[in-house]
Amino acid sequence: MHLFNLKIIKKQYLALGMLVFVVLFLFNSKPAFQCQLTPDSSAYLPTIYGITPTYARLAQKADLTRLSQTLMLVKNFHWIVIEDSASKTKLVENLLKESNLKYTHLNVKTDKPKGSSMNGPNVCLLKSRKFNATTALCASGVEQRNMALDWLRGHLRSPEGTPGVVFFMDDDNTYALKIFDEMRKIKRVGVWPVGIVGGMRVEMPLVTDGKVSGYNAVWKPYRPFPIDMAGFAINATLFLDFPEAKFSRKVQSGFQESEILKYVVTQQELEPLAENCTKVYVWHTRTQKPSIISPKKLKKPLVPDNHIEV
Amino acid sequence: MHLFNLKIIKKQYLALGMLVFVVLFLFNSKPAFQCQLTPDSSAYLPTIYGITPTYARLAQKADLTRLSQTLMLVKNFHWIVIEDSASKTKLVENLLKESNLKYTHLNVKTDKPKGSSMNGPNVCLLKSRKFNATTALCASGVEQRNMALDWLRGHLRSPEGTPGVVFFMDDDNTYALKIFDEMRKIKRVGVWPVGIVGGMRVEMPLVTDGKVSGYNAVWKPYRPFPIDMAGFAINATLFLDFPEAKFSRKVQSGFQESEILKYVVTQQELEPLAENCTKVYVWHTRTQKPSIISPKKLKKPLVPDNHIEV
Repeated sequence: MHLFNLKIIKKQYLALGMLVFVVLFLFNSKPAFQCQLTPDSSAYLPTIYGITPTYARLAQKADLTRLSQTLMLVKNFHWIVIEDSASKTKLVENLLKESNLKYTHLNVKTDKPKGSSMNGPNVCLLKSRKFNATTALCASGVEQRNMALDWLRGHLRSPEGTPGVVFFMDDDNTYALKIFDEMRKIKRVGVWPVGIVGGMRVEMPLVTDGKVSGYNAVWKPYRPFPIDMAGFAINATLFLDFPEAKFSRKVQSGFQESEILKYVVTQQELEPLAENCTKVYVWHTRTQKPSIISPKKLKKPLVPDNHIEV
Repeated sequence: MHLFNLKIIKKQYLALGMLVFVVLFLFNSKPAFQCQLTPDSSAYLPTIYGITPTYARLAQKADLTRLSQTLMLVKNFHWIVIEDSASKTKLVENLLKESNLKYTHLNVKTDKPKGSSMNGPNVCLLKSRKFNATTALCASGVEQRNMALDWLRGHLRSPEGTPGVVFFMDDDNTYALKIFDEMRKIKRVGVWPVGIVGGMRVEMPLVTDGKVSGYNAVWKPYRPFPIDMAGFAINATLFLDFPEAKFSRKVQSGFQESEILKYVVTQQELEPLAENCTKVYVWHTRTQKPSIISPKKLKKPLVPDNHIEV
């Protein structure tokens, strides 16, 4: 009897040990599980396809650097960067590689009309002297964005293609993280205010009963969609539904946004985001063009610095 | 004898069970342990005290937003933001709160000399017409940076004070993440090249045998330290060793950097970083001043937008 009790006690110890083990295992596994959940759960978020045309200039690396550092904080982001160049540059290639972002690197040289300068008549049909004439009013990035859309259509049809939204991002604009959360709600096309653009503090859609009823815009307010490129995003599947949707060099400056939007949406269908278009989460910032002193004007020659990438 | 064997076997099972438990526990705890290590290990990194003076303007929120998003990726960073204003603004206060960064928010209104405009003789002793005369050559942020240094001295003497480096950061400059890794190596004062500043692609210290032997600089090359504010960081303890070290309004424009450095270091002691001053990890970018159309000039009145923060 005594021996029998001992056996039972042994079994109880064993059972207790197992119980302690199970409890400790579960308790301990909790933080591990939490840590592992983070990357997995983001897989269910709609992908954001950010399309960024870029071109060589002195502040290019600075602008791409700070934009890439914002994008590092965005989950499920796929950056499509298209250089306006005959071949891919080492500068952009290395920057993308070192960013650890998911990216696609493309290039296409803008087809300059024969006999015209960069600001020639076919590139900028109308020029305004009111504000930022040389920087804001010349259509740029048309070929680059169209190439990105071609790539995107192929990608979406492939097994790697994931549902998501398309956002056209200039490399020197400013994007608060909140705008990326907003655009994941999009069913068709989402819109929101843009700060410091078109001669205004804020250019924005006006909302009545949850629908876009008009726009606060002073620059070419007769545009079908008086919205800046940073002020909307489009459900990616619409680019499969409308395979002809693309940008065009043949439209008046400032009409690129209206050009692409006319294919995929009507004003009545626009989805106002950013708290019914009352918050500014994107700004059409421009980086000041640097003034560089000509080396010929220097009294004393300097140590050469051409080997240093800026 | 049979019973005795059974007891031994039971004990062996128990021991085996315990062993399995210990192995599983350790195995399972590994990822949890890794996850928890990340924040702890950064506690041993030197703190970076980033000192940023800021002032109200249309692009302020945009500039602070993208800078804050870069800083979110920097470990052990403490942001000291000093507004040039009589009282703290809601805009900066909310931005700092929502950033989740470790920060200290201060304010001090720049003491404008009586009878002088912002560009008056006591503020800008010398004006150059060569480049960016109005933005680059006027001493700004003197009172703000000095207030931050006063706060820092108190903080370093308190139990919360941690060793680290002090970096003076303009709110519209561009900082690649690599520069923060570099400056944690500093013993006394570290220096590195700065992109797009002083009329150059890159203004930089010249290095011979691991020591600074001169500078590539064309703007006021006679400055004791011809280095931009973004081109150096200082070991924080030096501000306790030299309690008199501060910026001054009484020096020629462009001499602020030399003014603070002269207290704490000699050229011979400078530590060249960024691969012996051959890499550009910071850029003196400037955000273009926006052109806003006067509401009086509009043909059609707009919906008021003053309630919207930009």
